[in-house]
Amino acid sequence: MNPNTAATPGCPLCHEVGGLLIVQTEQLRIIRVQGAEAEAFPAFYRVVWNAHVAEWTDLVPAERSQLMQTVAKVETVLRRALQPTKVNLASLGNLVPHLHWHVVARFDWDNRFPAPVWAPPVRANDDVRLAALRDRLPACDAAIASLPF
Amino acid sequence: MNPNTAATPGCPLCHEVGGLLIVQTEQLRIIRVQGAEAEAFPAFYRVVWNAHVAEWTDLVPAERSQLMQTVAKVETVLRRALQPTKVNLASLGNLVPHLHWHVVARFDWDNRFPAPVWAPPVRANDDVRLAALRDRLPACDAAIASLPF
Repeated sequence: MNPNTAATPGCPLCHEVGGLLIVQTEQLRIIRVQGAEAEAFPAFYRVVWNAHVAEWTDLVPAERSQLMQTVAKVETVLRRALQPTKVNLASLGNLVPHLHWHVVARFDWDNRFPAPVWAPPVRANDDVRLAALRDRLPACDAAIASLPF
Repeated sequence: MNPNTAATPGCPLCHEVGGLLIVQTEQLRIIRVQGAEAEAFPAFYRVVWNAHVAEWTDLVPAERSQLMQTVAKVETVLRRALQPTKVNLASLGNLVPHLHWHVVARFDWDNRFPAPVWAPPVRANDDVRLAALRDRLPACDAAIASLPF
């Protein structure tokens, strides 16, 4: 955590890792989302800025660049390791206004494609394909963790 | 348009501006979304990469940086001009796989807040506040257009 920015009371990303920890640096961390949010989208990663800031443009340009270079590294690994139909990137933070980027590998068979992951489902989960995708994630995690940050 | 990348048949962002044109450079354009998509979210801007590429990491790092610096400029103007509750950024492209970034000013009174703009509505539109917001957009457009790109 950035020692200049105190943890904010009630902010889950100030007090918890927020998922399976893949990479931790002084400025940021990469996690893979766990639990209900990951059921239909197992390849759902987040790049979390450790310090509590709400907006991307609260960072100075060098920090923004560092953050986006990290998002690019995660996207690149997901494309190579998983060959998704599309990668979705988003920084929303309406519910948890602590800067984090969603990086989600989407597949044309997933239960919302081509709608965003936040839209209602358009088809049932394909449990066989989801299980096969989950099997590939430890190697994907390892490929991310092996990069220089 | 990038002369090295031919327009892709059937791609709306290769063949149409895609909204109200605010800024146009050789590499990218900034538009404000018009029509049904903008009804509940009038301050909905997009930064569109002119050449037809699908993924953000299809760009070389210098192009990615240029694109994100443009997204940052739009976010900065929206924050100063409109004082939104939150800015939402996203690059999805599942339906239109031509690289574009959504930059949306969100308000705690909008019809989906704190859910993403792609989720089902959680309340009715506040027509009085929406009209007041729409009145401020020409000045916001002008502030974006006045920046160096």
